[in-house]
Amino acid sequence: MRSALRFSMRCIVRETFPPSDRTRVVREPQRGVYDRESIYKILDEAFVCHVGFSVEGQPYVIPTLFARVADALYFHGSAASRMLGNLSGGIPVCVTATLVDGFVLARSVFNHSMNYRSVVALGKATLVNAPQEKLNALHGFTEKILPGRWMDARRPNEKELKATSILRLALKEVSAKVRSGPPLDDEPDYALPVWAGVIPLRLHAGAPIRDERCDPAIPLPVYLQNFKR
Amino acid sequence: MRSALRFSMRCIVRETFPPSDRTRVVREPQRGVYDRESIYKILDEAFVCHVGFSVEGQPYVIPTLFARVADALYFHGSAASRMLGNLSGGIPVCVTATLVDGFVLARSVFNHSMNYRSVVALGKATLVNAPQEKLNALHGFTEKILPGRWMDARRPNEKELKATSILRLALKEVSAKVRSGPPLDDEPDYALPVWAGVIPLRLHAGAPIRDERCDPAIPLPVYLQNFKR
Repeated sequence: MRSALRFSMRCIVRETFPPSDRTRVVREPQRGVYDRESIYKILDEAFVCHVGFSVEGQPYVIPTLFARVADALYFHGSAASRMLGNLSGGIPVCVTATLVDGFVLARSVFNHSMNYRSVVALGKATLVNAPQEKLNALHGFTEKILPGRWMDARRPNEKELKATSILRLALKEVSAKVRSGPPLDDEPDYALPVWAGVIPLRLHAGAPIRDERCDPAIPLPVYLQNFKR
Repeated sequence: MRSALRFSMRCIVRETFPPSDRTRVVREPQRGVYDRESIYKILDEAFVCHVGFSVEGQPYVIPTLFARVADALYFHGSAASRMLGNLSGGIPVCVTATLVDGFVLARSVFNHSMNYRSVVALGKATLVNAPQEKLNALHGFTEKILPGRWMDARRPNEKELKATSILRLALKEVSAKVRSGPPLDDEPDYALPVWAGVIPLRLHAGAPIRDERCDPAIPLPVYLQNFKR
C-alpha cells in the first residue's frame, strides 16, 4: 500500500511530455524517457546539438551550440536561418542532443551497444528578434558551459546582437532515449569465454591553454581553476 | 621554385570532393575542408553520427553508430529504414559526424567559439541486403572502436544478420568544417583584462568495468589493456 501510494505521488510530481506518434520510442521502448526532469538534465549537460531541417526534400544536419532557457531551446542558427528566410511561421526542425557514456562490450558482436542519453525535440523553430531574448540566449550558452564567464568577458553590443542569428524551439514534442548498465547477452552466450563489460566514456577538459596574446599578468579566473565537465 | 613545385605536387596528391552548392561552407568559408584525406580522418575518429531524414516534411535527427568502409558510410538504420519502407531507390539523408576539440574563450562573448571538426555527407541512403556487405559493415563498426574485438567476440549468425538493419551512403557529396587554434578577438578587445584561451576537450575512456556475470578468470583482453581514445 505504502509503496503504491509513493509511486502514484511520484507520477504526479514527475511531469511528463506525453509522447506523440512522432516522439514515442518505438525501437527498444524500454529506453524511452518522457519526464521533464530527466529530459532537461540531459539538455543541460549537453552543449552541442545537431539541428535537422529540410530544403527541397534534402535534409541537413548541422552541429551547433545550444542552451535551454525555461521551456525552450535556443541555438545558433546561421545555416537554418538562411533557409528560414521570411517564413515568420517558422520551419520544421528536429534538435537532437546526445551524450555518449560508454562502449558496451557484449559476448556477441550483435549485442554490442553504446551507453548514451539523447534527446529529440521536434517542432517549428522561429527566429529570435527581441534583443533581450537574444541576450538571454547568449547568456544561457555561456553560463551553461562556464558559470561566471558572462560577467567577466565583454558582453555583446547592439551591433553584435544584430549580427547574431538565434533560433528558438519551444519544448513541446520531446522525448529522450537512454541506455545504461552492463551488456545484455543472449542467455547461452554468457557461457562463452569472452570478456564483457563497459568502457566508460566522458568528455574530459584539459588544462586551459592561454592565448599567446593574453597578458600573463591576467590570472586564470576562479571559474577556470577547477573546471571540470 | 622548390616550394612551388612541392605545393603543386601536394595539390595533385590531395584528392578533393568538389564542393556542391549544397556542401560548400558558406558561413566562415575559411573553415571549409574538401580534401578526402582530412574528411576520412574525421569520419574514422568519430563513431557516433547524426542521421537526418524527413517524413512528411518533418525532419528527424537520430544518433547512431557508423563506420566508413572504402568510399561509403554504413550506419545502423532501424529508424530511418522503417521510413525507407520499399523505396529501393533510397531516401535523401544527411549524415553528420562531429568531434568536439575545445571551448574557445575570447575577450568578448560574441567571439566565443568551439574548436571542432565536423563532416556533412549528403545523398540517398539505401538498405544493405547482401549478408557479406552487412558483415563488412559490422566489422567496420567493431574494429574502428576496438581493433581485435571482432576476432574475440562471437560473430553474427545468419539470424542476427537478418535482424540487423544497416544503411549505406556513398561518399560523393561531402564537406568538412574545422575550427582550431586560439580565439580571434576584435583588435580593440585585445587590450581588455580578460583571460582568453582554449579549454581543450577530448573524449576520455575510463578503466573497463567488468560485467558482474563475466568470469573473473577471463583476463582483460590485450586490446583493452591500454585502450585510449
